[in-house]
Amino acid sequence: MSQLDVRFAPVILAGGSGTRFWPRSRRARAKQVLALDGDETMIQQTLTRLLPVAQVEDVWVVTNHWLAGTIAEQMPTLKPDHLLSEPVARNTAPACALTAFMLEKTEPETVIGVFPSDHVVKSIQRFAKVLTAGIKVAAAGENIVVLGVPPTRPETGYGYIEQGSEAPEFTEVPVHRVKRFREKPDRHTAERFLAAGNFAWNGGIFLWQAKTLTNAIREHVPDMAAILEKIAAAHGTDSFENVFAEQYPQCENISIDYAVLERRSAKGETRSGIYCLPADFGWNDLGSWASLHEHLGSHEDDNVLDGPTNGLVTIESEGNYVYAPGKMVALLGVDGLVVVETDDALLITTRERSQDVSKIVRQVHEGLKRDDLI
Amino acid sequence: MSQLDVRFAPVILAGGSGTRFWPRSRRARAKQVLALDGDETMIQQTLTRLLPVAQVEDVWVVTNHWLAGTIAEQMPTLKPDHLLSEPVARNTAPACALTAFMLEKTEPETVIGVFPSDHVVKSIQRFAKVLTAGIKVAAAGENIVVLGVPPTRPETGYGYIEQGSEAPEFTEVPVHRVKRFREKPDRHTAERFLAAGNFAWNGGIFLWQAKTLTNAIREHVPDMAAILEKIAAAHGTDSFENVFAEQYPQCENISIDYAVLERRSAKGETRSGIYCLPADFGWNDLGSWASLHEHLGSHEDDNVLDGPTNGLVTIESEGNYVYAPGKMVALLGVDGLVVVETDDALLITTRERSQDVSKIVRQVHEGLKRDDLI
Repeated sequence: MSQLDVRFAPVILAGGSGTRFWPRSRRARAKQVLALDGDETMIQQTLTRLLPVAQVEDVWVVTNHWLAGTIAEQMPTLKPDHLLSEPVARNTAPACALTAFMLEKTEPETVIGVFPSDHVVKSIQRFAKVLTAGIKVAAAGENIVVLGVPPTRPETGYGYIEQGSEAPEFTEVPVHRVKRFREKPDRHTAERFLAAGNFAWNGGIFLWQAKTLTNAIREHVPDMAAILEKIAAAHGTDSFENVFAEQYPQCENISIDYAVLERRSAKGETRSGIYCLPADFGWNDLGSWASLHEHLGSHEDDNVLDGPTNGLVTIESEGNYVYAPGKMVALLGVDGLVVVETDDALLITTRERSQDVSKIVRQVHEGLKRDDLI
Repeated sequence: MSQLDVRFAPVILAGGSGTRFWPRSRRARAKQVLALDGDETMIQQTLTRLLPVAQVEDVWVVTNHWLAGTIAEQMPTLKPDHLLSEPVARNTAPACALTAFMLEKTEPETVIGVFPSDHVVKSIQRFAKVLTAGIKVAAAGENIVVLGVPPTRPETGYGYIEQGSEAPEFTEVPVHRVKRFREKPDRHTAERFLAAGNFAWNGGIFLWQAKTLTNAIREHVPDMAAILEKIAAAHGTDSFENVFAEQYPQCENISIDYAVLERRSAKGETRSGIYCLPADFGWNDLGSWASLHEHLGSHEDDNVLDGPTNGLVTIESEGNYVYAPGKMVALLGVDGLVVVETDDALLITTRERSQDVSKIVRQVHEGLKRDDLI
C-alpha cells in the first residue's frame, strides 16, 4: 500500500519495436532499455519516478518477447509474474486492460495507472504530486483520469485533449473535465488548438480503478473483455503461458484512446467522468533523434555530441546531433544533421527527417532482408 | 636504359602532409600510401604506370620522414639510396632539383621526369605514349617539357599554362611552345581561360635533362644550387645523412614553377625552350573528397559508398560520399554530404566544403593539441 488510502498499481507499457532510434535501438534493444538520457535506462527511470508513490510489488510491465529478458535484468525487483510478455502486439487497449482484469479478481478498487516507458520527466517531485492527486480523482468514483501535457508548439504528432470546465471538488492541482479527445491534427488545426488555450497533448498516461476499466471494456469492446477474462483467470496457474499465447492474438488491435476514451467522452463532458490533470512536470516523449537533441539541451552552436566522446571540432556548423562513441568528431559546414554510428551501422539524416527513420528500418527488413540489423 | 636511346629517371614527389583526406589520411598515412582507388596505393600506381617507359633502378622518390618507412615497404624494388627523405619540407624546387645535381655528376644528359605521387590516370597506354614523346623533346636540347591537362571546367584550384604556337618539329603528339605560366586564377579569369581554348591545367609533371635543370637552378636560384651541389657530392658516402640534414633546411622554400618555369618563360615563347604536351590520359589529382567522389563515378543517385561495405539503404538522398568500412549505411533525406569514418574519428562535411578539411586538421593540431589524430 502506498501512502494513499488506496492501492495503486502502475502498469508500464514497454512494447516498443526499436525503430525510432535506429541504429542505436533495435527490436531487442528498443529505447526503453537504452540509457538515452543519463545512467539509468528509460524503463529504469520510469520505475524510479513511480516509487515515491507506488510499492514495487504493485508494479506491472507489459512488453514483448524481444525485450522481456532485458527488462527482467534491468528491473530485478519486479515480481516475475508481473512481467507480461505479449505473444503478439495488439495495440494499447488489451495491453492496458489485461492487468485490470487480473486485479479485478481480488481488489477491483485498485487504481491502475498506465505509463509509457519511453518518456522522460524533468521534475520527479512534481510528477509525484500530480500523480497522487490523479489517483485520488480516479479513486473517487468510476472516474477516468488523463494527464494532459501543456503544449508548447503546434505539434502534429500527438493527439490532443480538449478541456472543459474546471472541477472545483478537486483542489490539489487544477482539474478539468474533458470535453473531447482529438486525433493528431493537421498543422492549421494544431495552431488553432494552441491559440485556444484549453487543449493539452495526450501523453498516454491514464488512471482508473480496475473495475472502471474492465466495465468500460465490457461496454465498448465486449469480445475483448471475454478474451481478457480467460487470460486473467489463468494467471498464476501452470496453464497461463498457453492460454495467453492462444487467446491474446484474438484481441482486436485497437488503442485504448479509440476503444474507450473517445467513446466514453462522447457521453458529454459532465456524464463521461473523464478528468484531465496537468502533466506540467517537464515531459518529453523522446520520439525521435530530433527530440533527443532538444532534450539534451544547449551546447555551443546547438551541436550535441552524445555518448562517450573523444573530442569535437566544429567549423561553421550548427544544430547537429552526433552519436559516435569513442570517436573524435569533426563537423565542417554542416547544419541540422543527425549522424549515429554503432558497431555495425551508420545513419545519416537530418533533424527534420529523423521522424522517418522507421522507413529506413522497414527497408532494411523488407528490401535488404537484413534482420540482423533491425 | 629504357627502350628510348636516352636514360630516363623519374622522380616521384611524395611529400604530402595527409590533411586533404583526413581522417583516412594522416601525416604518417598520407594519400600517396593509401589505396583510395583500387588495390594499389597511389604511389604504387604511380610506379606501375612509369614502368613501361622507365627502368625501376632509375626511379627516385623524394618524401618526408613521416612516409619514408611506409614507402620503402610499399616499393620493395626501389633502390634504397634512391629514397630521399627530406629533413624538412622546402617546396618543390629543391625536391625536383636535388636528383638533378646527383645525376649531373655522372650522366648529365639523363632526362628527369617529375611526377606527383597522388594523382590518378585513366589510360596508362596514353600516358606512356605522351611521356615517351615528352622525353624526346626534353632530350633534343636544353628544353623544358610540361604536361598540360585539358581543362574541363573553370577550376580556380590549379595553375594554368598558356600555350603559344605549335612546334612542328615534334610529331608524335601535338606539342606547343609555352607562352606563359599563370597562377591560380579567380573564377572570372578561369572562365576566360577555358573559353580561349589555348590554356591547360598545370598538373605538376615536368621533363628536362639533368643539366638543363641544374643550369636553370644555377641561373635563377644560385644559393640553392650551391647547397644542392654539396648534398649531391655527399650522396653515396657515409656522411650523406648528416650533410642532407644540415644543408637542406637552408634551401629557399620555393616552388619549381616560381623558381624556374615562370622566370624562364619570361624570356619569351621562342627563346625559353618550354614546350607543353597534352596530358590527355584521364588525369585527376584527387585533391579532395569531392574529387574522389567524382573519380569513383556513377552510382545510383550519385551516392558513392566507398570501401568494404555492409549494405546501403537510401531514401531521398543524392550525391553523397560515405566511407564507413564494414557498416550498413543508411541515408535519409540528405544531399551532397561527405561522411568518413575511421577507428578513431568521424568527419562530417559537404562535397562543397571538403577542400577545407585541412582547416579541421589544423584545429585538431593547434586547438585541441591532439597530434595523435593527425
